[in-house]
Amino acid sequence: MRGAMLYGPRDVRFEDVEQPKIVEPTDAIIRMAATCVCGSDLWPYRGLQPMNGPTPMGHEYCGIIEEVGSGVRSVKPGQFVIGSFATSDNTCPNCRYGYQSSCVHREFMTRAQAPVLRVPLADGTLVPTPGVPPEDLVPSLLTTSDVLGTGWFAADAANVKPGATVVVVGDGAVGLLGVLSAKQMGAERIIAMSRHEKRQSLARDFGATDIVSERGDDGVRRILDMTKGIGADSVLECVGTQESMMQAIQATRKGGHVSYVGVPHGVELNGEELFFSHVHLHGGPAPVRRYLPNLIDLVWTGKINPGKVFDLKLPLDQVAEGYRAMDERRAIKALLWP
Amino acid sequence: MRGAMLYGPRDVRFEDVEQPKIVEPTDAIIRMAATCVCGSDLWPYRGLQPMNGPTPMGHEYCGIIEEVGSGVRSVKPGQFVIGSFATSDNTCPNCRYGYQSSCVHREFMTRAQAPVLRVPLADGTLVPTPGVPPEDLVPSLLTTSDVLGTGWFAADAANVKPGATVVVVGDGAVGLLGVLSAKQMGAERIIAMSRHEKRQSLARDFGATDIVSERGDDGVRRILDMTKGIGADSVLECVGTQESMMQAIQATRKGGHVSYVGVPHGVELNGEELFFSHVHLHGGPAPVRRYLPNLIDLVWTGKINPGKVFDLKLPLDQVAEGYRAMDERRAIKALLWP
Repeated sequence: MRGAMLYGPRDVRFEDVEQPKIVEPTDAIIRMAATCVCGSDLWPYRGLQPMNGPTPMGHEYCGIIEEVGSGVRSVKPGQFVIGSFATSDNTCPNCRYGYQSSCVHREFMTRAQAPVLRVPLADGTLVPTPGVPPEDLVPSLLTTSDVLGTGWFAADAANVKPGATVVVVGDGAVGLLGVLSAKQMGAERIIAMSRHEKRQSLARDFGATDIVSERGDDGVRRILDMTKGIGADSVLECVGTQESMMQAIQATRKGGHVSYVGVPHGVELNGEELFFSHVHLHGGPAPVRRYLPNLIDLVWTGKINPGKVFDLKLPLDQVAEGYRAMDERRAIKALLWP
Repeated sequence: MRGAMLYGPRDVRFEDVEQPKIVEPTDAIIRMAATCVCGSDLWPYRGLQPMNGPTPMGHEYCGIIEEVGSGVRSVKPGQFVIGSFATSDNTCPNCRYGYQSSCVHREFMTRAQAPVLRVPLADGTLVPTPGVPPEDLVPSLLTTSDVLGTGWFAADAANVKPGATVVVVGDGAVGLLGVLSAKQMGAERIIAMSRHEKRQSLARDFGATDIVSERGDDGVRRILDMTKGIGADSVLECVGTQESMMQAIQATRKGGHVSYVGVPHGVELNGEELFFSHVHLHGGPAPVRRYLPNLIDLVWTGKINPGKVFDLKLPLDQVAEGYRAMDERRAIKALLWP
């Protein structure tokens, strides 16, 4: 079969790779219904993250199980399943506390930009949907695997509560689905920070009440102006740079909550500044497995339509164009049909 | 009158200072019942914090009101009162959210190592006790002004819950009262990190179930060994250095809580490391005013005896010896009788 490999900056190739097979008795093999390109894939694509040689890509996936190892008990061939970008046994102490993305047996998935995928720890990682979905539901279901789960964690980790004033820093797909998540959690005012017309429009679609196009110190001043000088209750940092992190912290009220859900690149937080900001800070790799049953239900019952973030849909063999379109911000997020 | 002035490293003088008087109509003047030296006073005392010339010292206080300004409504002369090291109007949005130490009108107190003190924003800052206390209750009441309030915030900000496993990093008076606070909040296991026999003993007195004398990476390894490799639920960082902060973060389980309550000195947190630690982080200047009514009640009714942290009691004119004894770790905390 063929799968996506990153060779170096802006060099994605769709080429022959080994067909996955059961390695451990806890594995499952799934036939991909759809996969996609993640904002985090752009860090190595842009040469901003070190690589060790050619790297198989992709960690968002859903599809039908073809085969399971002898130790798998909770899922079986023929089921449509979704899993997180981080595998988990779902039984270790970290998992039981709801932090499955820090499972003591965690592996970060890769190789999902391909037609067939091996998923380790299938019992603890995969969640079956109520049935095989119609094709038009697949994009929204696919988002639960990472981008929606991560946006949801951003809202949850920022303690979004009914009536809250929420700011979302970052208008990538995660930020946009952070808006959707905050709306679901009952936020009253949702301020999306974006200077990109198409993304502003989707943010409003997902529940944003205000758009702020300023950034950095100007952006912070706008948020303070809009909140009587006090700052927002909850701020979701969905970028991962020094500027976005400081923007998030400074836009939060004393005692408010800041979440951060993208791997920080080159971020250093000054202890004294953080101290006097008086914020709560929580983040890390989103424990998507914790949210999967609820998110699948919200999609399955038509309460949310997160699949709208896919504004580009391509055959899998055009994966390189998916990366290019996202890199150039021509597309918010590219879905790939195998 | 005479008060304590810091002239430079290890140069505290008790010398003539101006007698405080009402300046604003919201002021109160109190006659000190007792004051003390704070661990945070040692940063400038040791030359580790910049100073702008000779500086009046002291921010922990309790005593009887002698006079109030024309605008003061809720306290009156003759009452025994306690206030926080940070003044607050107790009505601004930050105050109403419980973050009075970030009140929009906050001033940090100073000049409390003196027999008489001016307290701004008296209505929002001072809390009266049920009556004038007997002298033997004064040390414990004095602790509520800062050191107990800060230890209590450390436990609260680290989300200490009944049944929790708690680690306290730092065996200064704040750390020791963090142990007492965690005990009051129902922690099941309280691990105090200390290599100082007298402090270990007081920690046990206050409720510590275990003592760990290792520090840094060795200390982290011990905590992980004691928690099945997972880490503690709640870790109270009560020092403020890079080493203690990293020790606290690394000793916490995924999804656990780290609090930090001393102004960090030279601390820089790496974003990526913090991200994968998966902890909650919260701290800042303790909102002592929020806790004062409850803490005064716990002391007044004899449920806690935090005054035990004062292992040195001196006449106020020997304030320089109080600093020396704490600097040399001969004393945990020095109380000063005016």
